[in-house]
Amino acid sequence: MKIYSEEYQKKLQTAKKIDRYYKKEAQKNGLSSLDRVKAYLPDKYIFRSMRRGFVFAHLDIEPIIECIVRNKPFTVVSGLNPSSPLHLGHKALFDVLVDLQKLGADVQIPLTNDESYVDGKAETIEVSKKIALEQILPDIRAFGFVPEKTNIYVITETPIIYRFAMSISRLVTYDMVMAVFGKESLVNVGQIFYRGVVQLAQILLPQLPEYGGSKPTLIPVGIDKHPYILLARDVAKKLGMIPPSELVVKFQPSLLDPEQKMSGSKPNTAIYLSDAEEVIRKKISRAYTGGVSSLEDHRLYGAIPEICSVFALLLNHHPDDAFVEKVRAEYESGRLTTSELKKITADFIVSLIGDQQKKRSNA
Amino acid sequence: MKIYSEEYQKKLQTAKKIDRYYKKEAQKNGLSSLDRVKAYLPDKYIFRSMRRGFVFAHLDIEPIIECIVRNKPFTVVSGLNPSSPLHLGHKALFDVLVDLQKLGADVQIPLTNDESYVDGKAETIEVSKKIALEQILPDIRAFGFVPEKTNIYVITETPIIYRFAMSISRLVTYDMVMAVFGKESLVNVGQIFYRGVVQLAQILLPQLPEYGGSKPTLIPVGIDKHPYILLARDVAKKLGMIPPSELVVKFQPSLLDPEQKMSGSKPNTAIYLSDAEEVIRKKISRAYTGGVSSLEDHRLYGAIPEICSVFALLLNHHPDDAFVEKVRAEYESGRLTTSELKKITADFIVSLIGDQQKKRSNA
Repeated sequence: MKIYSEEYQKKLQTAKKIDRYYKKEAQKNGLSSLDRVKAYLPDKYIFRSMRRGFVFAHLDIEPIIECIVRNKPFTVVSGLNPSSPLHLGHKALFDVLVDLQKLGADVQIPLTNDESYVDGKAETIEVSKKIALEQILPDIRAFGFVPEKTNIYVITETPIIYRFAMSISRLVTYDMVMAVFGKESLVNVGQIFYRGVVQLAQILLPQLPEYGGSKPTLIPVGIDKHPYILLARDVAKKLGMIPPSELVVKFQPSLLDPEQKMSGSKPNTAIYLSDAEEVIRKKISRAYTGGVSSLEDHRLYGAIPEICSVFALLLNHHPDDAFVEKVRAEYESGRLTTSELKKITADFIVSLIGDQQKKRSNA
Repeated sequence: MKIYSEEYQKKLQTAKKIDRYYKKEAQKNGLSSLDRVKAYLPDKYIFRSMRRGFVFAHLDIEPIIECIVRNKPFTVVSGLNPSSPLHLGHKALFDVLVDLQKLGADVQIPLTNDESYVDGKAETIEVSKKIALEQILPDIRAFGFVPEKTNIYVITETPIIYRFAMSISRLVTYDMVMAVFGKESLVNVGQIFYRGVVQLAQILLPQLPEYGGSKPTLIPVGIDKHPYILLARDVAKKLGMIPPSELVVKFQPSLLDPEQKMSGSKPNTAIYLSDAEEVIRKKISRAYTGGVSSLEDHRLYGAIPEICSVFALLLNHHPDDAFVEKVRAEYESGRLTTSELKKITADFIVSLIGDQQKKRSNA
């Protein structure tokens, strides 16, 4: 039995803690692991983030799998709050959407500028609309969605949303919303209306007659959003719609702390799609890793890729499975040093983001 | 000193109670009587319901008076919940609007079909929209508004309302709305959003740049709505708009009880604009009056017009001041009997409503 250094042991504890967190949350919420799905689904349908474990759990995904395999229509809805510039955490999620579109999904992306506004992250609705249209939309367009199968819309410019939200609003009591969100995020009337029903209207919009009526829909969410999906499923049933299925994604970890998520409002935790090369290299050079500080210990114990914010960038974004697996194994064994990992990752992310910026300015 | 019968004394008590109710509410809420305004305002500006006391109190009406006298633009907003057919209580209020329009007002009449819906008085928003457009709108059109100075709109068909409501929503907390309305009328999210901000959006809409920007606005309301006007004035200030002025109207009394108001959901308390002649005559014949039952006592003591639901129909609807005053005096003195008053009133209301129905079908 190896005797680990204190630093390594601490990191090992963190890794176990994160693993336990996801497992416990999934279990607590009655979510199913995707492992069973991966076991029976032909390889060609298992897209990258499913293979790599970025999407890891689900609720009632079977109707969606059936649509994929039988080539029947379904819709994926994923709202985006335009309150901060896009970063790699967003890109990881949008890659899921792009992959699902390749498997047949129509994609709806509501830009929730009213959410930014009611939460005080934009001075006016006009400002939040401008940000959505001028800063966010061009980036999303550069992700490679098929225009004919993609509906990106700004909430405040889409009157059917509020009309539909008002329809739903009678079915949702204040107490129900309180139970899901808690008082702190329901201070003003806008937050109550937005969280209580405007989000529901986005999720259920594809099933309105105007959008073709009842159909299977899939909502990719962070695990903290699960209670809201239950509410959406409940309301869908009351409206005679198909309860939406849930696909749970992990967080793209903060650059500074593997137990936190990359956050647009904390610049040092995130790599923005607009970051310049020097900025990216500096952020990665300062990032938290899965390796210990002494090179001697590193060679001896190896590193822990599972809690490495740098390795997570490769894991969630690098297209080549074999390459990512090789880096993982080398790093874990201690053959690859942390500074080598950072160099490899920085080079890759610089080129990934350079690419995105080029596509954005072409679009 | 006269010794009154027990019945007469009871009625007298009721009259005092109603008078105290209005005075106390006005005082409690810091409202001013219209008496002072009537004292200095030239007669030609004192419209019927002001002369007759149907509008009786105000908050900050001076800017409106100035607009009237100097012939400057102002706007009156009065929402209508299309949850029941219109009755004479509505007509009394619309007569105020028509008179204010003659004095220069632009009139906005939002038909609040979303309110009917969130309160469970229409099965769907589509149904409430249909009622507003097919049943309510034709009656309003027959009231004699000048089309060029009148904007009647259905809330759910007017996207700017919800967009503006969302803008306002950040300024209004749940606690503020609770303080005004109480928990019982804020059960579902729609009720919170409607009462909390959609109503505000209606009141402040005329001051949006799209509608010509800041201007004096006047909101006629029942005295129970005063706290809401305070909220609207508060929000107006935060938006850099002119705080709306308030004009307080009395209730058109229930046909059955002078302490209750005529209510569209209680058919025996109300005369609908759609009622047939026999129905009107029957309702008036059964109505509560200001007279005592014995003819002998009536001749001796006279009647109390102030609590007479039948006389109130003349008071709020008959165009001829001298006639109304003559009836009042005759009835009060006991020279006119209650059944004579009922006959006179029924004849007048039958002709008034016949007229309305003719105008409605012509429009």
